[in-house]
Amino acid sequence: MNSKDLQARFFAIRSNRFFEFFVISVIIFSALVIGAKTYDVSPNILQLIRWLDIGITLFFMVEIVIRFIGDPNKRSFFKDPWNLFDTLIVVVSLVPIDDSEMALVGRLIRIFRVLRMVSIIPELRMLLNSLIKAMPQLGYVILLMFIIFYIYAAAGASLFAHINEDLWGDITISLLTLFRVMTFEDWTDVMYETMEVYPLSWIYYLTFIFLTAFAFLNMVIGIVVNVMESESSREAKEKAEAKAASEPSMSELQNEIKLLRQLIEDKVK
Amino acid sequence: MNSKDLQARFFAIRSNRFFEFFVISVIIFSALVIGAKTYDVSPNILQLIRWLDIGITLFFMVEIVIRFIGDPNKRSFFKDPWNLFDTLIVVVSLVPIDDSEMALVGRLIRIFRVLRMVSIIPELRMLLNSLIKAMPQLGYVILLMFIIFYIYAAAGASLFAHINEDLWGDITISLLTLFRVMTFEDWTDVMYETMEVYPLSWIYYLTFIFLTAFAFLNMVIGIVVNVMESESSREAKEKAEAKAASEPSMSELQNEIKLLRQLIEDKVK
Amino acid sequence: MNSKDLQARFFAIRSNRFFEFFVISVIIFSALVIGAKTYDVSPNILQLIRWLDIGITLFFMVEIVIRFIGDPNKRSFFKDPWNLFDTLIVVVSLVPIDDSEMALVGRLIRIFRVLRMVSIIPELRMLLNSLIKAMPQLGYVILLMFIIFYIYAAAGASLFAHINEDLWGDITISLLTLFRVMTFEDWTDVMYETMEVYPLSWIYYLTFIFLTAFAFLNMVIGIVVNVMESESSREAKEKAEAKAASEPSMSELQNEIKLLRQLIEDKVK
Amino acid sequence: MNSKDLQARFFAIRSNRFFEFFVISVIIFSALVIGAKTYDVSPNILQLIRWLDIGITLFFMVEIVIRFIGDPNKRSFFKDPWNLFDTLIVVVSLVPIDDSEMALVGRLIRIFRVLRMVSIIPELRMLLNSLIKAMPQLGYVILLMFIIFYIYAAAGASLFAHINEDLWGDITISLLTLFRVMTFEDWTDVMYETMEVYPLSWIYYLTFIFLTAFAFLNMVIGIVVNVMESESSREAKEKAEAKAASEPSMSELQNEIKLLRQLIEDKVK
Repeated sequence: MNSKDLQARFFAIRSNRFFEFFVISVIIFSALVIGAKTYDVSPNILQLIRWLDIGITLFFMVEIVIRFIGDPNKRSFFKDPWNLFDTLIVVVSLVPIDDSEMALVGRLIRIFRVLRMVSIIPELRMLLNSLIKAMPQLGYVILLMFIIFYIYAAAGASLFAHINEDLWGDITISLLTLFRVMTFEDWTDVMYETMEVYPLSWIYYLTFIFLTAFAFLNMVIGIVVNVMESESSREAKEKAEAKAASEPSMSELQNEIKLLRQLIEDKVK
Repeated sequence: MNSKDLQARFFAIRSNRFFEFFVISVIIFSALVIGAKTYDVSPNILQLIRWLDIGITLFFMVEIVIRFIGDPNKRSFFKDPWNLFDTLIVVVSLVPIDDSEMALVGRLIRIFRVLRMVSIIPELRMLLNSLIKAMPQLGYVILLMFIIFYIYAAAGASLFAHINEDLWGDITISLLTLFRVMTFEDWTDVMYETMEVYPLSWIYYLTFIFLTAFAFLNMVIGIVVNVMESESSREAKEKAEAKAASEPSMSELQNEIKLLRQLIEDKVK
Repeated sequence: MNSKDLQARFFAIRSNRFFEFFVISVIIFSALVIGAKTYDVSPNILQLIRWLDIGITLFFMVEIVIRFIGDPNKRSFFKDPWNLFDTLIVVVSLVPIDDSEMALVGRLIRIFRVLRMVSIIPELRMLLNSLIKAMPQLGYVILLMFIIFYIYAAAGASLFAHINEDLWGDITISLLTLFRVMTFEDWTDVMYETMEVYPLSWIYYLTFIFLTAFAFLNMVIGIVVNVMESESSREAKEKAEAKAASEPSMSELQNEIKLLRQLIEDKVK
Repeated sequence: MNSKDLQARFFAIRSNRFFEFFVISVIIFSALVIGAKTYDVSPNILQLIRWLDIGITLFFMVEIVIRFIGDPNKRSFFKDPWNLFDTLIVVVSLVPIDDSEMALVGRLIRIFRVLRMVSIIPELRMLLNSLIKAMPQLGYVILLMFIIFYIYAAAGASLFAHINEDLWGDITISLLTLFRVMTFEDWTDVMYETMEVYPLSWIYYLTFIFLTAFAFLNMVIGIVVNVMESESSREAKEKAEAKAASEPSMSELQNEIKLLRQLIEDKVK
């Protein structure tokens, strides 16, 4: 009874709008602290930032504990990936770091705290979920694109490696170079270099650009059509339901007419 | 009575198509004067431009006064942000400037007069309003994008500041560098530089490009779907209304049949 | 009678598929000749090209004459802009050019002959017409974009002219520089240069990029929505007509029921 | 009977999910081997790769034979372009190559084996088919774009060849330079160079960019509208069929009412 009472009280804290607002403020504040650290600051301020950092870590720990105790169903708490993410960020932040190598990792993990913004604001969480849900639909287009990239990278590494090791040294470097070509970033410099040895190598670049641009275009159109289809089907369903509620259907009309005929046949004999 | 008469007369001037056309001509002329000023011109012409400038300022003042007096509801005149903008431009233009520092500001304000083009042409005003109205729908995607930018900028400033102070010095500079990477502007130069120290830093750039491109794509698709939905719902409503006007509804038909049954039951006993 | 007979005969030639195919072949051949001229060719071949050129010009003249004589309505022949364009190309090609200055113009006009491809293939003509028809819908967005460009160019010329005359010398040069910034072409080089004098000038570039990108996006979406709307309304109309032809309307049903009631009321008294 | 039995058995192998999975694994493995070859590897590993290569070639040959024997309709086997492609890859791989010139070609052909990924996975095959099927719809826009490119390339080669032979030497080089301009890749460098001789040559570049961008935009919108139309018409058809199955049509209702009237007229005389 006592435990349930506690849970209910913590659930109330957790659902409190002011508490939520306060947590968001602390996250924003922690983001600003992270930003401040990148400037050249005096040792005093650096010391202050360190204390603030500890304070923020402790606050996040307390907040996770409140959320955990307040959760009516403790078993499923860590099934939510966002809860897992929040806990992980806090736990890793608590590990004391002295080694200068690890200090960098520690700082990077503190940066990830800004992502808590996404875990705390439901709209952002939904947005990210919908982004992730859109990925598998693109699966085969991405696979096709990767096959195109792989073939061109293998061919590029075979043909151009002796021209420029830095751009075509092996297949990994070639993939990076091809990604650069796809973004049109100084791609002619890359092309003119190989055209001095193989004057026809512009065919390689132009076919690659056309293929990837075409596949990319197709991907975008695929998403647009998918999103619109689901939207319009959802809308059509809503409209059909709204109509069904207010207006009689064709079959109801048919029934009415049949009843009428029955009536006439019965009465007028 | 006299005041109301005056208001009506000024309202007539203001609504006059010729007056409107004349105001637009003066705005275009003032834009050309602003453009002429950027060329190296002889002192005589510069003097002429100065006189023209004063003339334009006075004309705009007179025009605002006419519009104000002609307005039937003077209290709400300054509630319209466009009226406020027009008045502000005139008032600031009237401030005499001698200081060379302020002279630059004065010139910039004269440039903003070209924006009066938007305030005077209703179609442009509507277009801008619809652009502004589209912004809040994008709120959460822009917030998500900013979070991605902030995390990458903080990480970039932590990791790469010692490699190139000009690109990764602090979080503000890093944000600018990341925006540059997003526009694909010489992004490989930035990447190759950090790859010399951290050979795996291409992961940083590629994940950033994919995340922002994906979020951006999603934003664009979001707008397209939004616009289309509102268009199609507006259309569907119009169609439904048109149909309702010309054709009987299902329920009207049902009523007819019910009446018929009633009739038969009453008559044929 | 003789004249009409001639017209009918020429109309037959003109409508002949083989004749059309032959004209297209000559146009393609003239395009290849134009292309060949850009290579370093021996004087003999150059002489040959000159003769071919004269031959092509004469052929086009004959073709225009055939089309004109074959036209049943000679008054409206030159009302079609494509006929006017074809005639103009032929007439200008006939002017003998000796002056070396004009020789360049003469060569450029011969290049425009390739555009006859558009005037001869109906599908291309339709495509171009639909492209031109789409322009006025974009009128106000383009005007808004030009206003944005003009204001930024005037501000840029005022602020940055003393930093780099080649990029910001006057308003025309500034407009070109801004177009370059909009295409993201080495825009950071332009920005870093002015940031050395005005460290805050990144605001100028970023706001400009956001405004133009936003307006451009809006323009694209506007076209997509426009095209789709007209498509869907055309489709809806077709569907409605198809339905009207095969299925009775609601009002016809209502009439049937009313007739029925009338019948019962008349019969059963 | 024996032959048919054999065919059935091989068909069973071929349709076996495990066999399919195994073939895909071998293709992926062969892709990795191709990638490994681009690294600097010790002679031992190179020898191993050579053996693996032979093994893969043999496996693919066996697989093709199984597929051929297992095919119930052997005459149409090579009518499927994918079967033809698979066989070609195997046959060419079997040709022994010693000449160092041909060795490069041999390596490129081995790289094309990765494309077998597309021929083996039905979803990718369908995707590619739909991409290819979308091409002819774009026919006229691509033709129009090529005409624009050709005219500008001929004009560019005529006007700018003496300024920079490497960029405007002849019409082929000019076409490549214009493609570069279309991708916005250092296009201002190209423009500034010609503007030193012809200060008005920015008109050439800007009109080219606008024309191609506009045509490209139109192409994209054309595809989007096409895809959506076919989607929506398919959907509308499905919906109509679903409705027809569950609900009576208007004409059925009309028939009911007519029957009713007939009944009344017959009965009540």
